[in-house]
Amino acid sequence: MEDFMRGYFVSFEGPDGAGKSTVLKEVLAKISPRLKPQYLVTREPGGSKIAEKIRDIILDPANDKMDAKTEALLYAASRSQHVEEVIKPALAAGKIVFSDRFVDSSLAYQGEGRGLGIKEVKQINDFATDKLDPDLTFFLDVAPEIGLKRIEKLRPDQEDRLEQENIAFHKKVYAGFLKVRDMYPDRFVTIDATQPIEKVVDQVISVLEQRMPEIF
Amino acid sequence: MEDFMRGYFVSFEGPDGAGKSTVLKEVLAKISPRLKPQYLVTREPGGSKIAEKIRDIILDPANDKMDAKTEALLYAASRSQHVEEVIKPALAAGKIVFSDRFVDSSLAYQGEGRGLGIKEVKQINDFATDKLDPDLTFFLDVAPEIGLKRIEKLRPDQEDRLEQENIAFHKKVYAGFLKVRDMYPDRFVTIDATQPIEKVVDQVISVLEQRMPEIF
Repeated sequence: MEDFMRGYFVSFEGPDGAGKSTVLKEVLAKISPRLKPQYLVTREPGGSKIAEKIRDIILDPANDKMDAKTEALLYAASRSQHVEEVIKPALAAGKIVFSDRFVDSSLAYQGEGRGLGIKEVKQINDFATDKLDPDLTFFLDVAPEIGLKRIEKLRPDQEDRLEQENIAFHKKVYAGFLKVRDMYPDRFVTIDATQPIEKVVDQVISVLEQRMPEIF
Repeated sequence: MEDFMRGYFVSFEGPDGAGKSTVLKEVLAKISPRLKPQYLVTREPGGSKIAEKIRDIILDPANDKMDAKTEALLYAASRSQHVEEVIKPALAAGKIVFSDRFVDSSLAYQGEGRGLGIKEVKQINDFATDKLDPDLTFFLDVAPEIGLKRIEKLRPDQEDRLEQENIAFHKKVYAGFLKVRDMYPDRFVTIDATQPIEKVVDQVISVLEQRMPEIF
């Protein structure tokens, strides 16, 4: 990390259905009046036009022949643009950046889930981000089966994307998150995301107060 | 390289204006009746639809805020798709693949020209290609000043893209090619591209006959 990055970088990670977006929203609703620095809530592609165009290619269902390595490189390309245009300037200005997913998701999804290797995917993301790591990462822990059931309930019209054949993939992704957590014990904080949302939110806030007292 | 790759992979590299496309065309016109294996002439994005879409983002003048790392990652993403969809299947079928530029161009343009580092750009391309290297690389050697003048003559309407301020970049790219050549003395063959085209073509054919006698 470069010295001029005097802000705070907090990421939220976890399997699909862990409730990251909701928890992040609720946490901010509660603490935003108390935060001293300005803050920015982001998620990839995060309002960078180039990153959005790259994301369109990744998500276009017509691109079903996409190689796993191509997918990983496109996520890294989108991320590098997002980091340069949005995250780095915010950190340089002393802001708190709250990000819904970051590199760890690529390590879990592409590295472990797609079988490309966590070390290999980390390497291309180190290149993409200039080794920018979050200061603090909340891992919202929920078994993949439960996470998928939650999404089925929330979006029953999209049930086909969560078919039985995908459970194996999501189990690999979950195993990937556990491996990544073990790689970064200092910045990872695990929160039991099967608890009621209020409890999850309170625990996140409590950890922020302990680990980053200066932002309050 | 995997064992099933029983084809032959020949790349043509060099600065803008070195005459790669013309030389490749003339060489093929002369030797194609004598070639034993089937052959494929390609250049990135090389007929892969996904790779083409990625290329569109790289070349779109509207994307003038593109970070150099994003550019390098997008080239690598386009290449991995081209390799998986086009080059690997051709090599696996025993064909000769002639490619107008490959990884070495990224090492010279993004690694040295944009200052990202040859080693760093090589690493993401190793990921993209599964370390697929050409068996033989023709470096069409021409000083950047001469190459640029040739292009000015060929396409006078585009003179503004070749302004004085860009000469420094093209000189760096040329220096990059020389460094890459020194990294791979076994597969690099330098051809003086300031010679008359017929002589360049004959020298390329002569090297092919010496280094790959089995294809004739």
